[in-house]
Amino acid sequence: MTNTWAPVPEGSGFGIDNLPYGIFSPSDVGSRVGVRIGDHVLDLRAALGDQVFERASLNDFMARGRDYWTATRRRIIDLLTDPTQRVRAAEILHPLDQVTLHLPIEVADYVDFYASEHHATNLGTMFRPDSAALLPNWKHLPVGYHGRAGTIIASGTPVTRPSGQRKAPADPSPVFGPSARLDIEVEVGYVVGTPSELGKPVSTKEFTDHVFGVCLVNDWSARDIQAWEYVPLGPFLGKSFATSISPWIVPLDALAAARVPTPQQDPAPLPYLEEPEPWGLDLRLEFVLNGHTVSRPPYAQMYWSPAQMLSHMTVNGASLRTGDLFASGTVSGPEANQRGSLIELTWNGTEPLHLPDGRTRTFLEDGDLVTLSGSATGPSGSPISLGEVTARIQPPEAARS
Amino acid sequence: MTNTWAPVPEGSGFGIDNLPYGIFSPSDVGSRVGVRIGDHVLDLRAALGDQVFERASLNDFMARGRDYWTATRRRIIDLLTDPTQRVRAAEILHPLDQVTLHLPIEVADYVDFYASEHHATNLGTMFRPDSAALLPNWKHLPVGYHGRAGTIIASGTPVTRPSGQRKAPADPSPVFGPSARLDIEVEVGYVVGTPSELGKPVSTKEFTDHVFGVCLVNDWSARDIQAWEYVPLGPFLGKSFATSISPWIVPLDALAAARVPTPQQDPAPLPYLEEPEPWGLDLRLEFVLNGHTVSRPPYAQMYWSPAQMLSHMTVNGASLRTGDLFASGTVSGPEANQRGSLIELTWNGTEPLHLPDGRTRTFLEDGDLVTLSGSATGPSGSPISLGEVTARIQPPEAARS
Repeated sequence: MTNTWAPVPEGSGFGIDNLPYGIFSPSDVGSRVGVRIGDHVLDLRAALGDQVFERASLNDFMARGRDYWTATRRRIIDLLTDPTQRVRAAEILHPLDQVTLHLPIEVADYVDFYASEHHATNLGTMFRPDSAALLPNWKHLPVGYHGRAGTIIASGTPVTRPSGQRKAPADPSPVFGPSARLDIEVEVGYVVGTPSELGKPVSTKEFTDHVFGVCLVNDWSARDIQAWEYVPLGPFLGKSFATSISPWIVPLDALAAARVPTPQQDPAPLPYLEEPEPWGLDLRLEFVLNGHTVSRPPYAQMYWSPAQMLSHMTVNGASLRTGDLFASGTVSGPEANQRGSLIELTWNGTEPLHLPDGRTRTFLEDGDLVTLSGSATGPSGSPISLGEVTARIQPPEAARS
Repeated sequence: MTNTWAPVPEGSGFGIDNLPYGIFSPSDVGSRVGVRIGDHVLDLRAALGDQVFERASLNDFMARGRDYWTATRRRIIDLLTDPTQRVRAAEILHPLDQVTLHLPIEVADYVDFYASEHHATNLGTMFRPDSAALLPNWKHLPVGYHGRAGTIIASGTPVTRPSGQRKAPADPSPVFGPSARLDIEVEVGYVVGTPSELGKPVSTKEFTDHVFGVCLVNDWSARDIQAWEYVPLGPFLGKSFATSISPWIVPLDALAAARVPTPQQDPAPLPYLEEPEPWGLDLRLEFVLNGHTVSRPPYAQMYWSPAQMLSHMTVNGASLRTGDLFASGTVSGPEANQRGSLIELTWNGTEPLHLPDGRTRTFLEDGDLVTLSGSATGPSGSPISLGEVTARIQPPEAARS
């Protein structure tokens, strides 16, 4: 790890090799772009002087494109490794516990994929026990759908238990009420910086030209609402009440050492899905419920890479906008303790989780605190943290009034 | 019809009872808000002086809410019916053929419903001949899904034939290429002006507080891409390449006389979907292909009303943003010549349309020109036009280069 004069605690995942971007506000001025270093936030407006950092989202910065991102990262590294800059510390570094973090991006379109073979197989086995676990299209294309961009929320924002229609198979007609099967999905999200032109597909080779960075995503899911509504047009109200994302967008450059090939793809994908270089990522994820780790999903097991998702999403000519977010879908590994959702961990609620505090869970209860975190290994073995995305479940509106 | 001093041709659907809003640019200044009257555009910035009309979208105006919309409409009617204002005509009225019309709104989230019983029944009969035409949830909730907001385009923008994966049931594996089954869907869209708070459902009673107005939507659909991809998460690339909307947003006030009850709903919907007043709409739609009318879908036949769609879409606490667009889904009536898509009109391509020019069509061919239009009856029998949404099909990218 290169030396920096900025204070970085031993073992921190936010050393000089990471430098993720976010939006913060100190107590005295408005929202602006910051970079996390150790347990401090570097104020980019103050440090580098560029007005593009005096914004309430990263979008204007992201819209400038890959060359500007690279140059900015270079300038930040130069500043943080130049000992003569230490005199500016009080002016440009804020202790993390003295600032407020905000939603880092203004989300344009939000797409959610379904790229874990283990997750898709688990759900298929649970819900279609008499047929093949994977549907016929699954190994030919990264299945995905559009989600609600307007309800993507900052980490820490409470999630109110949604109400809606549900109907158990034995019920004669649907009933209305708070979801009784509220779940999480551990996912990784990719943020688009550089837009593309309508009618022009973006190839896997152009992934780094367009994608700015990576965050964690919790795709909250009301399984009972979803089960009743989703045939034939897909998930809607079972997902649209909230999606939480982490505050720090980790640049692709910080994950260069974490790149790995995806698992062998068989059948071979169509040419537009071929990758000249691998964009699988060895990210180690963690799902913590009320302080207890309940699973550790391995992102390296994901069948489809984010470059393949991007190429697929645009192959019909659909254009990209700055702020587009696409997520991987639930990350689940082959082992039981590597599953990225409660519906898998409890096998559709039939095998409750026994938490170390003596309690059990099938789905989430009001008051539960969910934290997802993630990390990778940087150059020379340094840890690269994706930070965390967290939220507490609130009772439904009616129950609180 | 109230008299206006502005020139309105006999029989125009853009008289003083309509007054739809759009974004236009004269040759000499930037984009701004206009109101269509006859074959002219009233420049609201020049006419009323408010800076909120000097914008490239209606969003800032729409965000001001129902009271401001009502007051603005009152001021416009006062101006256009006050004979002393005629002296300002040259300053505030632009001939329509001397301006450029733009996409009227900056789209936040886009939701597409599936609210025509005839359309859903036609598709069910075609694709699931051995089971009930309507799925079990269809009469209990307005089925819907999120579409791509970033590819909503202005009327007149050409549509490039999309490419993608498709697989006929007999094919051993999918092939890649331009869609061979490019279709249209005649729809009506509703534009949200007033946002809502996360976690707070919007009731059917609050429909007029939040919805600003109505437009026409052509939900272009690549049936072969859609058929291969859409199980289990719904339509994605079969739809996301383009959705065209009409340039004029007709205020709800202009459609007051067109309100009708929806068809009898049986079973009775759950309480959150009950309507205190009817929000069915008697809109007469038309689908014109290369100058020939091929169908006239009757919107009054739609099973679910837009107030029910809005209530359903937010009942889980999902919030609304200014610029949200939700569309009805394909409008089809009970008669063969009232179907709102080619897949229905040609019964999945098996019964080609014979056009008056001697040509036949199953799905769209390159160079085809599609125009959708719509109208209603205003107070005292005056026609209210929804204008039209049009586009020509371009060959796929590779075929042009």
